[in-house]
Amino acid sequence: MNAVVENKAGEIEGQMQETGRRARVASRALARADTGVKNAALLAIAQIIEDRADALTAENRKDLEAGEQNGLEAALLDRLAFTPERIAVMAEGLRQIAALPDPVGAISDLNYRPSGIQVGRMRVPLGVIGIIYESRPNVTVDAAGLCLKSGNACILRGGSEAFHSNRALADGIRAGLEQAGLPGDAVQVVGTTDRAAVGALLRMKEHVDVIVPRGGKGLIARVSEESLIPVIKHLDGVCHVYVDDGADPGKALKVAVNAKTQRYGTCNTMETLLVSRHVAAEMLPVLADAFVEKGVELRGCESTRAIVSGIAEATEQDWTEEYLAPVLAIRVVDGLDAAIEHINTYGSHHTDSIVTEDYGRARRFLREVDSSSVMVNASTRFADGFEYGLGAEIGISTDKLHARGPVGLEGLTTLKYIVLGDGHVRE
Amino acid sequence: MNAVVENKAGEIEGQMQETGRRARVASRALARADTGVKNAALLAIAQIIEDRADALTAENRKDLEAGEQNGLEAALLDRLAFTPERIAVMAEGLRQIAALPDPVGAISDLNYRPSGIQVGRMRVPLGVIGIIYESRPNVTVDAAGLCLKSGNACILRGGSEAFHSNRALADGIRAGLEQAGLPGDAVQVVGTTDRAAVGALLRMKEHVDVIVPRGGKGLIARVSEESLIPVIKHLDGVCHVYVDDGADPGKALKVAVNAKTQRYGTCNTMETLLVSRHVAAEMLPVLADAFVEKGVELRGCESTRAIVSGIAEATEQDWTEEYLAPVLAIRVVDGLDAAIEHINTYGSHHTDSIVTEDYGRARRFLREVDSSSVMVNASTRFADGFEYGLGAEIGISTDKLHARGPVGLEGLTTLKYIVLGDGHVRE
Repeated sequence: MNAVVENKAGEIEGQMQETGRRARVASRALARADTGVKNAALLAIAQIIEDRADALTAENRKDLEAGEQNGLEAALLDRLAFTPERIAVMAEGLRQIAALPDPVGAISDLNYRPSGIQVGRMRVPLGVIGIIYESRPNVTVDAAGLCLKSGNACILRGGSEAFHSNRALADGIRAGLEQAGLPGDAVQVVGTTDRAAVGALLRMKEHVDVIVPRGGKGLIARVSEESLIPVIKHLDGVCHVYVDDGADPGKALKVAVNAKTQRYGTCNTMETLLVSRHVAAEMLPVLADAFVEKGVELRGCESTRAIVSGIAEATEQDWTEEYLAPVLAIRVVDGLDAAIEHINTYGSHHTDSIVTEDYGRARRFLREVDSSSVMVNASTRFADGFEYGLGAEIGISTDKLHARGPVGLEGLTTLKYIVLGDGHVRE
Repeated sequence: MNAVVENKAGEIEGQMQETGRRARVASRALARADTGVKNAALLAIAQIIEDRADALTAENRKDLEAGEQNGLEAALLDRLAFTPERIAVMAEGLRQIAALPDPVGAISDLNYRPSGIQVGRMRVPLGVIGIIYESRPNVTVDAAGLCLKSGNACILRGGSEAFHSNRALADGIRAGLEQAGLPGDAVQVVGTTDRAAVGALLRMKEHVDVIVPRGGKGLIARVSEESLIPVIKHLDGVCHVYVDDGADPGKALKVAVNAKTQRYGTCNTMETLLVSRHVAAEMLPVLADAFVEKGVELRGCESTRAIVSGIAEATEQDWTEEYLAPVLAIRVVDGLDAAIEHINTYGSHHTDSIVTEDYGRARRFLREVDSSSVMVNASTRFADGFEYGLGAEIGISTDKLHARGPVGLEGLTTLKYIVLGDGHVRE
C-alpha cells in the first residue's frame, strides 16, 4: 500500500469507528424508547418519504444516470428505479411495521423459585445491527423500520449504485426520528462507497452486535468469511419435496408444481424432487408432464430416466445446485430413510417438505429433517416471514444459533433474565 | 516448521477431522433418540462410573503422580483428585440430568394461518458441541450428560493434566451409551494432549456447531479469538449492586454483603458497589463496617473516601476489575441514571442488582441495564442455572446472540419451524 491509499484507509476506518460509537450511544436511547414513540417515528418517516417524493425521485435520477453511463444492465436499473408506486410501498411498509406488536420489554416465564425469588425473562434489543445490501434502495427503509421497531440502532451500507437514493432516504429517516424525539444517529447510512468501509464495519465488534447481509450468494459468502461479528444469514436454498409411498397423487402434483413453478428465483423454491421407488412408476410420468408443460427442464437419476424418457442425466453436482431457474433435479429414493439422508446430506438446511398420508412417516420427517423449515403436505414456497405470521422479515437464517428460519422482529431481539426479590440472599 | 513437526500437525488435523466426522454421524442418531433411550444411557453411565470406582481412581492416581512430578500446585492437584465422594457426585449428577424434562421435540406456538397451513416451532438439538476445559475431570461427565440429554453429540477436550482420568471416564461413557443402544461416538474425548488438537477443533466448522469453553479467562479469551465456530461464553463477571435512594437499609446491607462475601471466586460475585449520593452518608459507614469485619479490602472514589476514612483510592482500572478476591470497589453516583450509565459502561453485562423500594426506578433498572441477569432486591449470587430452575448449567453466557445468562439444556437446542398442510400451495 502506498502512503495515500493507507491514509485513505485510515480515514475510512476512523469515520466508521465514529459511526459505530454514535450508533452505540443511540442504541441505549432506542432500547428504552416507548412503543408509542417508536411508532410515532415510523409514521413520521412514512409521511416524510411521501412528502419528499419529488426530491427522492430527483436523487434517484442521479443514480440511474450514473448506472446507465456505467453500463448497468436493464434488470438492475429497473430494481434501482423509484416510481410513485414504489415510494408508496415503502411508506406503507413502515405503517405496517408500526402496526405490529412491540416485542421489546415483554416478560415471560416469571415464576417463583424455592429460594423465594421470582425468575423470568425479558425480551430486549440486540443493540446495534449492521446491514449490508445491494442495489434495491427500498431495503434502506425496510431495514431501518424493522431495527427501529425492535429497539435497535442500525448502520446501513447499501450498494454504491444506489448511493444518492440511499442518502436522500437517510435524510428523511433522520428527520422522522428527530421529529419523534429519538436520536437521528439511530439509523445511519454509511456515507462513502469505498469498499474499505465494509471491511471496517465487519471488524467493529465493540460497536456492532450482529451483521445481516441481504443480497446475492457472493455478497453473503464474502460477509460471512470476513466478519468478526456474528452474521444472520442463509447462503443457499436447495429445497426438496419428497413424494412418499403414502402420498395422495393430487396433493403431490399440486405441492410439487407450486414449490417449483410459483416463482423460480426465490430461495424457498424446490430445486430437487425426491420420489419413493414404490410410487415412482405411478407418479413420475404425471409430475414430469406437468413440469414440461410449464417449460421446466428436468434432470433425472438413472431410475427416473428409466421411467421418464428424453431427459438429461442428473450428476452429483445437481444434488447441491440452487438453480434459481426453470430447472429441476429428480431422484428416485428407496423410501423415507433414503429421502431424509439425501436431504440432510445434499440440502442447505433451508426448507423441505414431505407429501404423505402416512402418520408415522410424517412425524419422523418433521423430527429428523435438519432444516430451518420442515413441512408436511405444503409447498416450500410458504417459508416466508409474512406467511408465517411474523408480520415482516429481515431475512431467512439457515444457521442454528440464535435465529433459524424467517427472521422477523423477534429475531432482532434477545432474552435477558430478570430476578425479583425482597432482600433475598443466597444461603 | 520442520518436516517432522509439520507431519505431526497434519496427523493431528487428520485425527480431529475423523473425530468430527464420527461425531456428525452420531449426532443424527442422538437427535432422533427417544427420551427413554437417552435416560437409560445416562443411568447406565452413572452405574458404570460407580462400578468402576477403583479403576477410575487408579487412572486418576497416574495424573496426580504426573502432576506432583511436574510441580502442579496443591490447589490444582486437589481439583484433579477423585475421592469416593466425588465419584458419587458425578454419578448423582447424571441421575439428576436423567430426571430433567427432555427439551427435544417440544412443539410450541402451533397456529393456523389465514392460508390454511399450521405453523409452529419444534425444539431440536444444535448437533455437535465442542467443549474445551481445564483441570477438573468431573466436567467430562457433566458436559457429556447435558449434551446427551439435549440430543447433541459432543467432542470433549480436557486439560492435559487430567488425561488418564478423562480417558477412563470416556471409556465408561462409551460403554453406557452402547449399553443403551446409542452410538459410542456420541461422546468422544480427544485422545491427545497436543495443543494442535484444540486449534483443529476450533476450525472444524463443517463438523462442529458450537464451542463451549469452560475455565479461566485466559482459556476463554484464547478460544474466542481463535474459533471459526460460534462460541457460548462469558469472559468476565464484573457484577454490581446499586443502593438506590429508595433502598431499605436492612435489605441493602444483607444483599450487598451476600453478593460480595458468600463466595469470592465466582463470576456472579459483586465487584463494584454503587451508592446513590442521597443516601451515601447514611448507608456507607454501615456497609463499610460490615465489609471490613469480613476482611474485605475497600477501594473508594473520592466521595466514598470523604465518608469512609482510611480506605484506598479506586482508580479508573478498578471499575473494570474482576477481583475474584476479598476486594471491593465503591463508587458514589448521582442517582439511577448515573448508576445505569456506570454499569453499562464499565460492567461486563453479567449480573447487576438494584436495592430499592421505589417502583418506577426498579422498573427502569430492569429494562435499561444491559446485562444477562438484572435483579431487584436480590443478591447477584443467585445468577446460576440451578437457582434459576434450569436443573443444570453448562455455563453462563454474556453474549447477546442465542443464549444469554445461565445456559441449561434449552441453550443447547434451537427452534426450527414446522408447517402442516393438506396439499396447501401458495397463491
